[in-house]
Amino acid sequence: MKLGVCYYPEHWPEEMWPADARRMAELGLSRVRIGEFCWSRIEPEPGHYVWDWLDRSVEVLHKAGLGIIMGTPTATPPKWLVDRMPDMIALDEQGRPRGFGSRRHYCFSHKGYAAECDRIVAAMAARYGNHPAIVAWQTDNEYGCHDTAVSFSNAACDAFRHWLAAKYKDIAGLNSAWGNVFWSMEYRTFAEVDLPNLTVTEANPAHWLDFRRFSSDQVVAFNRRQVDILRTASPGRDLIHNYMGFFTQFDHHAVAADLDVASWDSYPLGFLEQFWFTDAEKLRYARQGHPDIAAFHHDLYRGLHPNGRWSVMEQQPGPVNWARYNPAPLSGMVRLWTLEAMAHGAEMVSYFRWRQLPFAQEQMHAGLLRPDSSDDVATDEVRQASAEIAALAGEAGEPIKQVALVFDYQSDWVTDIQPQGQSFRALRQAFEYYSALRQLGLNVDIVPPGRSLDGYAMAVIPCMPIIPDGLVEQLSAFKGQVLIGPRSGSKTADFAIPAGLPPGPLQGMLPIKVNRVESLRPGLVATLGDGSIRQWMEHIESDLVAEMTTDGGVGVCYRNNNLRYLGACIDLANLQAVFSRMADEAGLSVLALHQDIRLRRNGNLVFAFNYGREAVAAPLISGAELLVGSLIIPAAGVAIWRMA
Amino acid sequence: MKLGVCYYPEHWPEEMWPADARRMAELGLSRVRIGEFCWSRIEPEPGHYVWDWLDRSVEVLHKAGLGIIMGTPTATPPKWLVDRMPDMIALDEQGRPRGFGSRRHYCFSHKGYAAECDRIVAAMAARYGNHPAIVAWQTDNEYGCHDTAVSFSNAACDAFRHWLAAKYKDIAGLNSAWGNVFWSMEYRTFAEVDLPNLTVTEANPAHWLDFRRFSSDQVVAFNRRQVDILRTASPGRDLIHNYMGFFTQFDHHAVAADLDVASWDSYPLGFLEQFWFTDAEKLRYARQGHPDIAAFHHDLYRGLHPNGRWSVMEQQPGPVNWARYNPAPLSGMVRLWTLEAMAHGAEMVSYFRWRQLPFAQEQMHAGLLRPDSSDDVATDEVRQASAEIAALAGEAGEPIKQVALVFDYQSDWVTDIQPQGQSFRALRQAFEYYSALRQLGLNVDIVPPGRSLDGYAMAVIPCMPIIPDGLVEQLSAFKGQVLIGPRSGSKTADFAIPAGLPPGPLQGMLPIKVNRVESLRPGLVATLGDGSIRQWMEHIESDLVAEMTTDGGVGVCYRNNNLRYLGACIDLANLQAVFSRMADEAGLSVLALHQDIRLRRNGNLVFAFNYGREAVAAPLISGAELLVGSLIIPAAGVAIWRMA
Amino acid sequence: MKLGVCYYPEHWPEEMWPADARRMAELGLSRVRIGEFCWSRIEPEPGHYVWDWLDRSVEVLHKAGLGIIMGTPTATPPKWLVDRMPDMIALDEQGRPRGFGSRRHYCFSHKGYAAECDRIVAAMAARYGNHPAIVAWQTDNEYGCHDTAVSFSNAACDAFRHWLAAKYKDIAGLNSAWGNVFWSMEYRTFAEVDLPNLTVTEANPAHWLDFRRFSSDQVVAFNRRQVDILRTASPGRDLIHNYMGFFTQFDHHAVAADLDVASWDSYPLGFLEQFWFTDAEKLRYARQGHPDIAAFHHDLYRGLHPNGRWSVMEQQPGPVNWARYNPAPLSGMVRLWTLEAMAHGAEMVSYFRWRQLPFAQEQMHAGLLRPDSSDDVATDEVRQASAEIAALAGEAGEPIKQVALVFDYQSDWVTDIQPQGQSFRALRQAFEYYSALRQLGLNVDIVPPGRSLDGYAMAVIPCMPIIPDGLVEQLSAFKGQVLIGPRSGSKTADFAIPAGLPPGPLQGMLPIKVNRVESLRPGLVATLGDGSIRQWMEHIESDLVAEMTTDGGVGVCYRNNNLRYLGACIDLANLQAVFSRMADEAGLSVLALHQDIRLRRNGNLVFAFNYGREAVAAPLISGAELLVGSLIIPAAGVAIWRMA
Repeated sequence: MKLGVCYYPEHWPEEMWPADARRMAELGLSRVRIGEFCWSRIEPEPGHYVWDWLDRSVEVLHKAGLGIIMGTPTATPPKWLVDRMPDMIALDEQGRPRGFGSRRHYCFSHKGYAAECDRIVAAMAARYGNHPAIVAWQTDNEYGCHDTAVSFSNAACDAFRHWLAAKYKDIAGLNSAWGNVFWSMEYRTFAEVDLPNLTVTEANPAHWLDFRRFSSDQVVAFNRRQVDILRTASPGRDLIHNYMGFFTQFDHHAVAADLDVASWDSYPLGFLEQFWFTDAEKLRYARQGHPDIAAFHHDLYRGLHPNGRWSVMEQQPGPVNWARYNPAPLSGMVRLWTLEAMAHGAEMVSYFRWRQLPFAQEQMHAGLLRPDSSDDVATDEVRQASAEIAALAGEAGEPIKQVALVFDYQSDWVTDIQPQGQSFRALRQAFEYYSALRQLGLNVDIVPPGRSLDGYAMAVIPCMPIIPDGLVEQLSAFKGQVLIGPRSGSKTADFAIPAGLPPGPLQGMLPIKVNRVESLRPGLVATLGDGSIRQWMEHIESDLVAEMTTDGGVGVCYRNNNLRYLGACIDLANLQAVFSRMADEAGLSVLALHQDIRLRRNGNLVFAFNYGREAVAAPLISGAELLVGSLIIPAAGVAIWRMA
Repeated sequence: MKLGVCYYPEHWPEEMWPADARRMAELGLSRVRIGEFCWSRIEPEPGHYVWDWLDRSVEVLHKAGLGIIMGTPTATPPKWLVDRMPDMIALDEQGRPRGFGSRRHYCFSHKGYAAECDRIVAAMAARYGNHPAIVAWQTDNEYGCHDTAVSFSNAACDAFRHWLAAKYKDIAGLNSAWGNVFWSMEYRTFAEVDLPNLTVTEANPAHWLDFRRFSSDQVVAFNRRQVDILRTASPGRDLIHNYMGFFTQFDHHAVAADLDVASWDSYPLGFLEQFWFTDAEKLRYARQGHPDIAAFHHDLYRGLHPNGRWSVMEQQPGPVNWARYNPAPLSGMVRLWTLEAMAHGAEMVSYFRWRQLPFAQEQMHAGLLRPDSSDDVATDEVRQASAEIAALAGEAGEPIKQVALVFDYQSDWVTDIQPQGQSFRALRQAFEYYSALRQLGLNVDIVPPGRSLDGYAMAVIPCMPIIPDGLVEQLSAFKGQVLIGPRSGSKTADFAIPAGLPPGPLQGMLPIKVNRVESLRPGLVATLGDGSIRQWMEHIESDLVAEMTTDGGVGVCYRNNNLRYLGACIDLANLQAVFSRMADEAGLSVLALHQDIRLRRNGNLVFAFNYGREAVAAPLISGAELLVGSLIIPAAGVAIWRMA
Repeated sequence: MKLGVCYYPEHWPEEMWPADARRMAELGLSRVRIGEFCWSRIEPEPGHYVWDWLDRSVEVLHKAGLGIIMGTPTATPPKWLVDRMPDMIALDEQGRPRGFGSRRHYCFSHKGYAAECDRIVAAMAARYGNHPAIVAWQTDNEYGCHDTAVSFSNAACDAFRHWLAAKYKDIAGLNSAWGNVFWSMEYRTFAEVDLPNLTVTEANPAHWLDFRRFSSDQVVAFNRRQVDILRTASPGRDLIHNYMGFFTQFDHHAVAADLDVASWDSYPLGFLEQFWFTDAEKLRYARQGHPDIAAFHHDLYRGLHPNGRWSVMEQQPGPVNWARYNPAPLSGMVRLWTLEAMAHGAEMVSYFRWRQLPFAQEQMHAGLLRPDSSDDVATDEVRQASAEIAALAGEAGEPIKQVALVFDYQSDWVTDIQPQGQSFRALRQAFEYYSALRQLGLNVDIVPPGRSLDGYAMAVIPCMPIIPDGLVEQLSAFKGQVLIGPRSGSKTADFAIPAGLPPGPLQGMLPIKVNRVESLRPGLVATLGDGSIRQWMEHIESDLVAEMTTDGGVGVCYRNNNLRYLGACIDLANLQAVFSRMADEAGLSVLALHQDIRLRRNGNLVFAFNYGREAVAAPLISGAELLVGSLIIPAAGVAIWRMA
């Protein structure tokens, strides 16, 4: 695994560049990402390119032995470009323009802007495509950040109408698919279809789902134009995009199909603060992040490419500037996060950023260096991690396959469009299943439907309302244990309830019908022994005897051979009991880990991580040699064993 | 009482219609509402009418013996119509268009749309007005739903100016009535007057009140155009509109003046979740609804017409799709709700909807049938209720008059415009008085000011800031006990403080002056023995000795002969003590009911309803014969007695 | 100290004026403010002035011996003027117009409106400028109220571009100062710069800061135009503006530089309810206001002018209409507030308003008289205060200087633009330091940077991110004890981190570096003995030994000679321990006051105020003669001593 850093030569006086490059190399870094926001510096006036400074910075970094990941600058078009085509600006759901003055101020559907992107990407690729220092390209930056994957502009509306026409061919097909006879929503032509925002009450969920699919497709198409240019002009380089955390507004599997390596931007403290975690979790893990946030995304993004190539493009090295509260990581966490990425098979961990920038929007975002160029707190931890990684080089063998968690992006669109009960989301469901499995010490891979399940002992589908073609056949052929979670199979591809009721196509494997669903406010529960159903409860009709029932006798979990369906959100202990039974049947052993400890096996290595603020005894790993750390793992500590 | 159902033949293949109609009849239903959202199917292209499918569906239903309530489709104008006159769209208070894609996408003030409505209603009425199956018409659907009674469009602004000119004749009159000398808000012409939204800080409350009155008048006028057409073209049929729950944006008494029967759409679980109830109440009654929600509206809407004709047009049969959380009703509740409507004198209870629709916005809304056409959970309860209703036919005699609760819509507009303390609303005040009275076992009728009080032993005015002409005379002549609640008489018709201070015209009956009012944050109270004043407290000057004072000696309730004024919001026990004293003086006996039990007398019948999750002993009804149920009323159970 | 009242003759029939004036005088009032919202009455048609009624009301008040403060009416331009230039309306941050119908419906940058203001002010000044009754002018009313100091209109955008061009001369200077190389935000011309609203994510904080400075300058310029006219046309009169509470959207020191007397509008109950106080504080002080709200503003506004001239222009006399909840003041509070103003050296306390107005927006706002012209509750308290003030006339000597708290408005803009942790604000920091000092019985003056510190024993800078030129020199020369709070010196004038890290220029006096900052969610703390760090924590590098450290050994407070830097938000007891140590070293004695008691020395007089609901023993003031009150101070009571 390589280490790297994000660097912006244009932010610093040229005389600082050589020392920066030297210090990077000394710290053990071998990769540097540059260029992704520099459009106004390489084209300060329309058509007037200024490459010399970037040429020189490439040379400086190259000389220091660093491999460069060059970013295309399309996330930040300069003001002159926006003024030339003001309608390239996206509109938000309320119809307000999302103007110049920060970043991502463009609509994915605007043809004029797409042509400008072709031009600047082609120019960069022509300039640096064959430079030996360039090892990879990053397309754009964080597609969709700040809710930009969707736009409600005229350009988006026009493109959506064409997308619908291509999909449905004739308008009767659309009317029928969406069920537009309801509320007289029928159209006579595709030109009559508007975007689904600003309706009096909720728009048709089928309308929304197609708009979400369209918006995702626009991201894919936008990215593919850059890929097409770069493949030709810069052969042999990896093409990468940097994805985000807990973000589902486009289909990452579809974008990845055009790229070589997945990467993501890992900010565990910010994500903990900003997402659905309880106040107790936010306090307990304020300086560490929830123990499963980083790992969940590592496993999610490793699954984007069948060959498992993935990296961390931006790793939080200290406090950030963008969460409600921004504490500092506990001492040791930057090293822990780095080794956790290694445990999940990353090719690279790249820190964001080299030096804290004293001005503009991110001035309160820590870097490896302080603004005064001194080492910041994380630097020693990076140095230590770098040495440890070097010492472990070659240790890792083949990936360990245990549990495949099947996730697709469309599932989260469906539950976002129609939560039916407040805050129900397929993504959260996936995270909670993942966390429950991982607390049993199991290795989890997150894969899309259709990916081979060979070698796995268990497959888990936390929540998949629309069952894609082929999945039933795939699951039928799978010999391991399968668990399918609530709402799976509850919708057709047109966002309708299946004719034979949920779980629709899954009924071929499991003879049940979901006759009724309930969403439950906090405190309204059905008891399950010491635990309970909360938030979501299905009423299932079946000739099967339920494997799990509420204390009141309502069936919760049904089983047919190696396949189970769980029709409710249940407490962690009950969920883990289901998983443990499955693991037992699948021949996997589980552990009762301390709540702050997580384990990950990667080839011959076993990693243990202590996400707590107190030292904890390591789990017993029999027949293994301790390579790193001690049997009492300190706060933010790591232990690594080699299996015999 | 008849039972009915809402049905949408256009949603289902024609071959399903006959079986549907047959099953409706077998279930004991005799009424079916159709047609109210079908515009795009009867006029798919401008001016091109397609009646054949609707003709055939009418025949199928007719043949099955069902009486049809035909809805006019004006709540859902088709897209081609909106595209022809885009300015028919309402604007919301923020100035955003409320576009096509759901329903109710029209502005009540748009003349072009009004003409289109005339045309389609006339066409429908010409087609079906004299068909023997048509027993009634429903105008439009749920006027005002999704906050659509108000619009801030240009059409609304123009119409408002004309409305003001008609009311005030000259602009000086308006300036004087509103007090526009304040903050130099004086106008020189009616054309200078804008709508009251988007002002820097709050607009003049008199401006808002006239806008609310205007908006209500626009609804009345819109409805009246349909009435005028239908009266002529479809003689002898009842004209009905279906009102909503906890909704006051137009004057329902004024709309009702043009109609024959009031009906409302009863969704007790959704209303509990979405309105002001405490978390404890939302949990306790999550699957039953608060025990007074349905009854309050039954009594409110029965009061719209002097002859008391009213129905439930849409009765919740299972989980709905539109509340924050959507649990299922407790087993038995659909029957209970049906019999509760009977206890309050309904002509009809119609369930919404026949079969759960698998597509579009309401796909998660339960029906009597599941999407797969099997009976859903409620069907057996409907069957049971149908049999019980048949068995009780002819039992009910004359209505029992005990307490008249006087409510007008304008009161809620006034407190909404000027709450003065967060969340104070006249509607909630009315509900809480109603609930307190009903928990004493009293029969309450909710009537508008001016309705005869003959036969009542008590009259209660929970909160009426503007005392309408004639009310003082009416109360003076009334011999029963009267209670008038806080803020009553506190405003003139021009939204000003009366010259002699509140309670203004009521001072003729009760010599008090409200010198000062306070709104109190939660926790800031004045103690009243074991209870307290909370939220609202008035300081009253009077030569009378207060009948109730705070522990600190401030007068709370004043009495003059048979009239009391209560100048505060007080706890339930103290409020019930006042009511009990009044009842005693009025010769009514009260009961101490269990908190989950409610009672309703209708003619010779006495109904008891258990809204709890546990069985409860029925209250002792002396000298009565138990016709239905048992003396221990189970959860969601009903007991019915015949008085000797 | 004089007493006065706000009066609106245009609201009342002319026949009421003489009795009103007489009663004012009898009550001990000698000042009356009129005119500030009367534009539509003095110019009902464009160019058609109607002065007669105002002439007569001036005469009536003059005859009663009242000195008149005449307000210019520019806060309420009439409708005809707005209709003539609709683009004079401000736009809010979301781009919505802030239209006619209340007040302050203008953009400070609109040139056409500025010319209209010149015209009406000149006309008023010509009419009344030399009238003997006119003792002062109030310019406009509450600049910035309802968030109106900022506008996002085209007029504002044009003016902002000119302001930037004047400041930066060439666009490269702006790009460099703001750091626009970040995210390609560079401009080629000033005409390319937009306002900072409606960007995709946060705009550059330097962009915001310049916009806030510009917006403040526009207020200053707007006010100065009126000043220039009035100085000429009405020589010898005081020019005053009435500021608000907890309001920082423009630089009050800059506005004050053109005026003679500062005044403010004191509504302690409303401010308590609407601002950051805890629920416990809001309950405890619901009818009194937090004990430091009024005093903080008295001391803040007294500091606007070097000679300390200040007044209360509007004093709350009863419940107001604009807070979430509006309780009545505890009996005695109006007198207490009046005497508290005296204790802080006010020239005048003027009550708002004379008589409660029965119509329009403020109809629920109490006055000295009820709408029916009877004395309202406060009148007796005013009468008592008036007598007491008369009895104490001539007692007060020179101001007592103890602690100078240094505050500038820009500090609050910086923390508002970049809180970095939720709800951190420099203004709140200033208030909390003020409160901690005052609870020790110390007299605090609030002064701008640059004001002489001669005579003070202590200087406190609660939070000043940008250290203005000259402040370091001033503090270096100061012999008293100095405390500098967190985030001070953390930004350059261009909103960047100083090259040598925070506290930037303060490092010349104190050799520390702030290497890292953390914002902490509620509950995440670092313990300091019995107390803790909360919300904000800095990590400081220094060769100095910390004077205060966390229990974990992190330095919190560093000291060099007479200067301390406190790098965290800490609990009250620890903060008071620091202040007490400083006071001891500075030769000031401190008191341990009861939490409801506050003390203020003014010349020879010592005032004690009981803000509680229970009687409290007065603090022991040795060698002093009790002039007013008793040694047990009742709820809302006041005691006054004369020092020997």
